[in-house]
Amino acid sequence: MTRSIDLNSDLGEGYGPWSMGDDAAMLALVSSVNIACGGHAGDPETMHRTLRLAGEQGVIVGAHPGYNDREGFGRRVIPMAPDEVGRVVAAQVGALRAIAATESIEVRYVKPHGALGNLAAADGDVARALVSAIHAVDERLAILAISGTMLEQVARDQGVLVYSEIFADRAYLASGQLVPRTATGAVLHDVGEATERLLGFLETGLMPVIDGEPIPLDAHSICVHGDSPGALEMTRRIRDALAAHDIELVGFAAAR
Amino acid sequence: MTRSIDLNSDLGEGYGPWSMGDDAAMLALVSSVNIACGGHAGDPETMHRTLRLAGEQGVIVGAHPGYNDREGFGRRVIPMAPDEVGRVVAAQVGALRAIAATESIEVRYVKPHGALGNLAAADGDVARALVSAIHAVDERLAILAISGTMLEQVARDQGVLVYSEIFADRAYLASGQLVPRTATGAVLHDVGEATERLLGFLETGLMPVIDGEPIPLDAHSICVHGDSPGALEMTRRIRDALAAHDIELVGFAAAR
Amino acid sequence: MTRSIDLNSDLGEGYGPWSMGDDAAMLALVSSVNIACGGHAGDPETMHRTLRLAGEQGVIVGAHPGYNDREGFGRRVIPMAPDEVGRVVAAQVGALRAIAATESIEVRYVKPHGALGNLAAADGDVARALVSAIHAVDERLAILAISGTMLEQVARDQGVLVYSEIFADRAYLASGQLVPRTATGAVLHDVGEATERLLGFLETGLMPVIDGEPIPLDAHSICVHGDSPGALEMTRRIRDALAAHDIELVGFAAAR
Amino acid sequence: MTRSIDLNSDLGEGYGPWSMGDDAAMLALVSSVNIACGGHAGDPETMHRTLRLAGEQGVIVGAHPGYNDREGFGRRVIPMAPDEVGRVVAAQVGALRAIAATESIEVRYVKPHGALGNLAAADGDVARALVSAIHAVDERLAILAISGTMLEQVARDQGVLVYSEIFADRAYLASGQLVPRTATGAVLHDVGEATERLLGFLETGLMPVIDGEPIPLDAHSICVHGDSPGALEMTRRIRDALAAHDIELVGFAAAR
Repeated sequence: MTRSIDLNSDLGEGYGPWSMGDDAAMLALVSSVNIACGGHAGDPETMHRTLRLAGEQGVIVGAHPGYNDREGFGRRVIPMAPDEVGRVVAAQVGALRAIAATESIEVRYVKPHGALGNLAAADGDVARALVSAIHAVDERLAILAISGTMLEQVARDQGVLVYSEIFADRAYLASGQLVPRTATGAVLHDVGEATERLLGFLETGLMPVIDGEPIPLDAHSICVHGDSPGALEMTRRIRDALAAHDIELVGFAAAR
Repeated sequence: MTRSIDLNSDLGEGYGPWSMGDDAAMLALVSSVNIACGGHAGDPETMHRTLRLAGEQGVIVGAHPGYNDREGFGRRVIPMAPDEVGRVVAAQVGALRAIAATESIEVRYVKPHGALGNLAAADGDVARALVSAIHAVDERLAILAISGTMLEQVARDQGVLVYSEIFADRAYLASGQLVPRTATGAVLHDVGEATERLLGFLETGLMPVIDGEPIPLDAHSICVHGDSPGALEMTRRIRDALAAHDIELVGFAAAR
Repeated sequence: MTRSIDLNSDLGEGYGPWSMGDDAAMLALVSSVNIACGGHAGDPETMHRTLRLAGEQGVIVGAHPGYNDREGFGRRVIPMAPDEVGRVVAAQVGALRAIAATESIEVRYVKPHGALGNLAAADGDVARALVSAIHAVDERLAILAISGTMLEQVARDQGVLVYSEIFADRAYLASGQLVPRTATGAVLHDVGEATERLLGFLETGLMPVIDGEPIPLDAHSICVHGDSPGALEMTRRIRDALAAHDIELVGFAAAR
Repeated sequence: MTRSIDLNSDLGEGYGPWSMGDDAAMLALVSSVNIACGGHAGDPETMHRTLRLAGEQGVIVGAHPGYNDREGFGRRVIPMAPDEVGRVVAAQVGALRAIAATESIEVRYVKPHGALGNLAAADGDVARALVSAIHAVDERLAILAISGTMLEQVARDQGVLVYSEIFADRAYLASGQLVPRTATGAVLHDVGEATERLLGFLETGLMPVIDGEPIPLDAHSICVHGDSPGALEMTRRIRDALAAHDIELVGFAAAR
């Protein structure tokens, strides 16, 4: 029996003449890529370049919509009604799908970015609007949600295909939530420690937390970051550790 | 035997808090609507409002992409390679399709706007890139081209469904081109004269020109403007004249 | 003895091809104009057109900065640190001043718009950052604040020239705050009633409130709106009433 | 006798979360910095960060306005009337001046960017509109022009303070123009060769050209690029060579 998991990363987060991180290096390492689609980052040319690289590497493509807020990189909540959020997401997913079509690439799933992702993880109305909009665009589109969130629950309730992601380098609370970035110990900087924890989780299905007993979490994908040399190194080490334990990398949305 | 023709208009050309013209009044008069999709005008909320109005009136919907240039309203040529033009158009068409999907409305055709439309009418490379991009997005999408242009020809050559439009209120040259807006007599301001000319053309297939004998033109649709009280009045008069001559209004892309 | 007051209005709130309200009509009625400067509305051409009209009418010019959020027309709070707010405001005021300089017009004061104005009216840190930024740009710039707000207080504390405005058509609370727009009776729609109340206030310095005894308010200017036919009519009636009572219209920032 | 020259570089060309080149490293090497001001790059926070770094290094600050075209990085000509160009430039210069004022920094000069710079170098109407707008904003503002261009000539004719720049790494034609980037040999990649040529020019005032005898050129400043590791190295080598020849680095607009 072969076990498998997915590695996903947020890429294509440049804009016009600007780039962010080393997309080509990361695309050689992950099995799924969440591509910015013109909201917090991205424009037709940046989307196209990233899609092409993903196609060359055979990486599964998802859309990574965010608030229409480039200056804030989608990390600020822009107040709007849930239905408006749904339409912002639909427009961005539609734009990426269309550019992907010009390269005969299919967009298989959607993962919301930044402040929008956090809001959809916690607010049922926003999650419902977002899931409905994505489902209306194409009922075959899956959603990639942070494991244990409202978005995951809402998608399940609405009968929409949903997959769950965990973070290799973020500490967890017994509630299932991530330790906020502002708190001490929120991020695991030690690659060895992060990799050990991940392998243990993949073995047992139980994630250690900082305030209690390990908790069960669904995990179809591991989110890795690629916007720093250290993050790239962590991704390589995780990949190697997975290979060493005969865990295959397979895009969660590869098959339909 | 019933004859029929289509009336199309460019609507949804507001942005954020701003509107342009009386979309609701025009949507009650036309059979097809070209909706701005976030390039020269439009944003998710504006697109959605216009789509909904179109749906309520049973008007056939097309996309009206333009340069990403709101301050210039898409009337300035933004230098870019033909393939880039194709991707700009694909992204906008994709965005409108996705928002339309949230209202179960189908986008049936694409008509390029302003400076982009003029360029695609004259430049084969741009026309080819544009037609290819649209065809890649969805092969059922038709193109609405100004009658007698390079865009019309290229779409035909590439086997893409293409329909032709004429203008009720613009003077023509023997070459088939429109008299440039800057020239005297470019625009027919007299509603009666414009309507007479249109009825004559629908009868004979021959369009009077200012520098020679009437010329044959294909016409599946008549383009009318709605951004002034006078234009609204002309549209009403044309509608009445068509009805009086038993010419039915049918969206050119209504059937598939 | 001649009494005087100022009438101010927010104008120049178009963008690119779009306009809002009838700026020319309002500029013939007011003594001060708050011109949008590229944040929630406005761009170099729109600013220039409005400045020129103001110059022709001899109307005193102020800057009307807002969040960089055209789609939301500056009515949504965009989360940012107080110092960032100060820089957003400085950049917009600087842009308007520079375009005004090309027409030999001086920008005399600053009045923050929409959500930014509301925040500066209530939040001391934002008010301080905003006042400091404006003062750094030019120490002769005055601030136009809603009477009784934190912004007014902070400007006074910092020794910055500040003037106070009241609203002709908004109901007040005993706290000095406006009745929120969402509450019943927030807006006085009856022109006669609004004008009567205003004249009474100008006579006594006491403003009627909906939940107690009339309160004293400073008032150097009356804010009137110009974005609807009704608002234009109210402005005309207020002007006539002021003239009938020998109250002269003088821009509060006219002299230095 | 001490000879002196200025080194200038285009910095602050990031946007929102994106950066370009190593601004801090370059600011330690140059004597003048042209800061993007929200047109082709830059936003209030990016401008502020760059201004602060410049202040800490004691580098003289100029404004670097460009077309409002971030996706094209100001390298595409956006069609507009000369007076509109003037207002676009004024608005950007005004924005930078205002943010600089919050750090008690003065903007001393203006150097147009990219396609706008090229157009102003060749088109008298654009150059005149640009010079007039800058002069109206503040008559003490100097202009930094490419040596031998129409912009330099127009500024002189209008009595506006103008300084001239040459390029360390670009080949020249006998006409005084730069060899177009698309031509072979347009860029001197060999640092030693570029430095030798520069020192020779500073000695003789004559610039070697690829199609004739060396030509005389005015030069108050040398433009260096900082957006690649190689460019940073060239700047260091040029600095060292200047120091070795007792040529002092002094901002051309340092004194007034």
